[in-house]
Amino acid sequence: MSGTVTFLSDFGLQDDFVGVCHGVIARIAPDARVIDITHGIAPQAVLQGAIVLRNALSYVPAGVHLAVVDPEVGGNRRAIAVRTTGGGVFVGPDNGLLMLAADELGIAAAHELTDSRYRLPEVSRTFHARDVFAPAAAHLAAGVAVDELGPAVDSAELVRLRLPEPELGRAQAAAVVLAVDRFGNIATNVRARHLETLGIESGDRVEIRLTLDRYYAVAANTFADAPPGELILYEDSNGMVTLAISQGNAARLTGVRAGDELRIARE
Amino acid sequence: MSGTVTFLSDFGLQDDFVGVCHGVIARIAPDARVIDITHGIAPQAVLQGAIVLRNALSYVPAGVHLAVVDPEVGGNRRAIAVRTTGGGVFVGPDNGLLMLAADELGIAAAHELTDSRYRLPEVSRTFHARDVFAPAAAHLAAGVAVDELGPAVDSAELVRLRLPEPELGRAQAAAVVLAVDRFGNIATNVRARHLETLGIESGDRVEIRLTLDRYYAVAANTFADAPPGELILYEDSNGMVTLAISQGNAARLTGVRAGDELRIARE
Amino acid sequence: MSGTVTFLSDFGLQDDFVGVCHGVIARIAPDARVIDITHGIAPQAVLQGAIVLRNALSYVPAGVHLAVVDPEVGGNRRAIAVRTTGGGVFVGPDNGLLMLAADELGIAAAHELTDSRYRLPEVSRTFHARDVFAPAAAHLAAGVAVDELGPAVDSAELVRLRLPEPELGRAQAAAVVLAVDRFGNIATNVRARHLETLGIESGDRVEIRLTLDRYYAVAANTFADAPPGELILYEDSNGMVTLAISQGNAARLTGVRAGDELRIARE
Repeated sequence: MSGTVTFLSDFGLQDDFVGVCHGVIARIAPDARVIDITHGIAPQAVLQGAIVLRNALSYVPAGVHLAVVDPEVGGNRRAIAVRTTGGGVFVGPDNGLLMLAADELGIAAAHELTDSRYRLPEVSRTFHARDVFAPAAAHLAAGVAVDELGPAVDSAELVRLRLPEPELGRAQAAAVVLAVDRFGNIATNVRARHLETLGIESGDRVEIRLTLDRYYAVAANTFADAPPGELILYEDSNGMVTLAISQGNAARLTGVRAGDELRIARE
Repeated sequence: MSGTVTFLSDFGLQDDFVGVCHGVIARIAPDARVIDITHGIAPQAVLQGAIVLRNALSYVPAGVHLAVVDPEVGGNRRAIAVRTTGGGVFVGPDNGLLMLAADELGIAAAHELTDSRYRLPEVSRTFHARDVFAPAAAHLAAGVAVDELGPAVDSAELVRLRLPEPELGRAQAAAVVLAVDRFGNIATNVRARHLETLGIESGDRVEIRLTLDRYYAVAANTFADAPPGELILYEDSNGMVTLAISQGNAARLTGVRAGDELRIARE
Repeated sequence: MSGTVTFLSDFGLQDDFVGVCHGVIARIAPDARVIDITHGIAPQAVLQGAIVLRNALSYVPAGVHLAVVDPEVGGNRRAIAVRTTGGGVFVGPDNGLLMLAADELGIAAAHELTDSRYRLPEVSRTFHARDVFAPAAAHLAAGVAVDELGPAVDSAELVRLRLPEPELGRAQAAAVVLAVDRFGNIATNVRARHLETLGIESGDRVEIRLTLDRYYAVAANTFADAPPGELILYEDSNGMVTLAISQGNAARLTGVRAGDELRIARE
């Protein structure tokens, strides 16, 4: 009996990229179960993918975690599998995508995916998810050991991403927008402890500045704490301080996108 | 052996909301099968979700029906499970979303989801699909009885939605657009019996008025009854009278969106 | 034990079309596994669907292949099942959608889907995926023989699509855009052998003309062969010559869409 493969990518669902990878996995490990975390990572947004993968991981079954956001496909970046001390294995490109999650769990070993027995017979230059990563994930789910996939890699040498930290002044925080979700909720790199440092408490009015625009929000616990249409600033379900509109769309109102800077201050 | 969980929401597939709920279900009930009805309900469109859930229900396996369109998450609305006389169970917020379907099947019992054994250990304020509803659905699929989830609720007290009925004059019907689908087909709250009342038969020319715009359509049975590019008015596969363009996109032509009013009259 | 059903359509995931078909399959063949190839085929784009189906087929498990892009639903087009010499079966409308793939595998028999035992009890005029095709696919996956579904059809009489071939001059090729993917990569009907005919080799500069616009690209093997932001022309992972921007979006730059013509010439 094969295990579970979780799958995250920036492939979207418009094309057959995801379906073909599911097919490849099913041919190699017919009874593996695949759980799609999401394929809606913005194209080539490695940092966003890494954050979503880390946040999702506490909620999905342990097993094999396939993740592909791979702008350098066909170049020199390595293809890797990273085994954690808990026994789960991450499979994907060595560009930092896997490492926020893997470092949090603790790394037991890392291997480069070079053994041709665990790739498709023909490897294209531009679709390694299909030809390299999905086959490796499927073989792992079917019971192949990580160290069969290729030579060990020193885990200290794997590429890591720098998570942008907010800048904290005495009265304000300079934040970066990490993601905007389907509901227009704007997640930042600020954490609840940063708001505490600024003396912002639930119920306080908060000023949000975006270059020239200025908005006022209420520090809140949930949407129901403010009347519909009002901006709130709250800790989202992944612990990220987030700007939203109760029963509305904050991203549409403000025009904010991932990567933008905003400033948060007590009024 | 666990049962089937169907899953409908307004979460979209851009984010990891749906994937994380799949993960939560798989951790609790590893062999439950999850069938996604759709996650494309417009954000916070409870009525649209209720209609789609009711229409889909005749085509999916009986079992647990998880549905989440939940604008009041974190507020006072109850989280409920509703058992029908046929044995299926609906799980979701008490905002009417479940009740078009549940009332049609007949309600045997309703319970509030309060027992902490059937929630995640930490319940966020803004993502009850992950923390409350998906765990309850998974436990039900794994064999837990509905009345274990929390205290019984009088089913007469559950929130119901008012389905907008068309206004019928002697010569015309004032309709509301309930949904616009991927193909631009415009489903209304008019039923075939209403067209009969107006004396509209297959092959008749029909006038459609949208505030200032006026269109002509042919009352038809299917797309092939009109030449490509022509507007038709037909009963869709769920029994809703729908405006469409044969091999075209009626919503793009007319600019109509869910919630709009239109008038239908025999020419 | 039922087999695998792959599923491709132009239904998108915004509505419940796909979910309802999954439900229909699960009711008839509860242990059949469904692999979604994609539901992102452009609405009613039969040729695009046929190409994607053919390309995906080498990567998915053999079994039943359900495909629905069906602009003539409710009209006179036949509903068919086509058994290949390898044992796989294609199910869908007789409009050419299935035949690029089926002809490549070799056809053993074709049958019209007329037997009411293998349809839903009520067949709508506009949603044969739910009422005719998905039930047939599920019954096949559950072990029903193809010839039970209805009378044999001469496979020479099935509708075929003409795949547009590029026009080759001495110095240039006139190509048609077959598809634009999520990353803005522009796949054409040109093959690597056509580039050879024109004397274009890896590393050459290539001129791309689109009506009045003119662009320069580098003939390359993969994205990493050009600096970010530069146009490349490469053979994609399905063997189609494709125009792309390394770490960018070529469709957004050029405004190209499926069906457009472009000219490729050595500079």
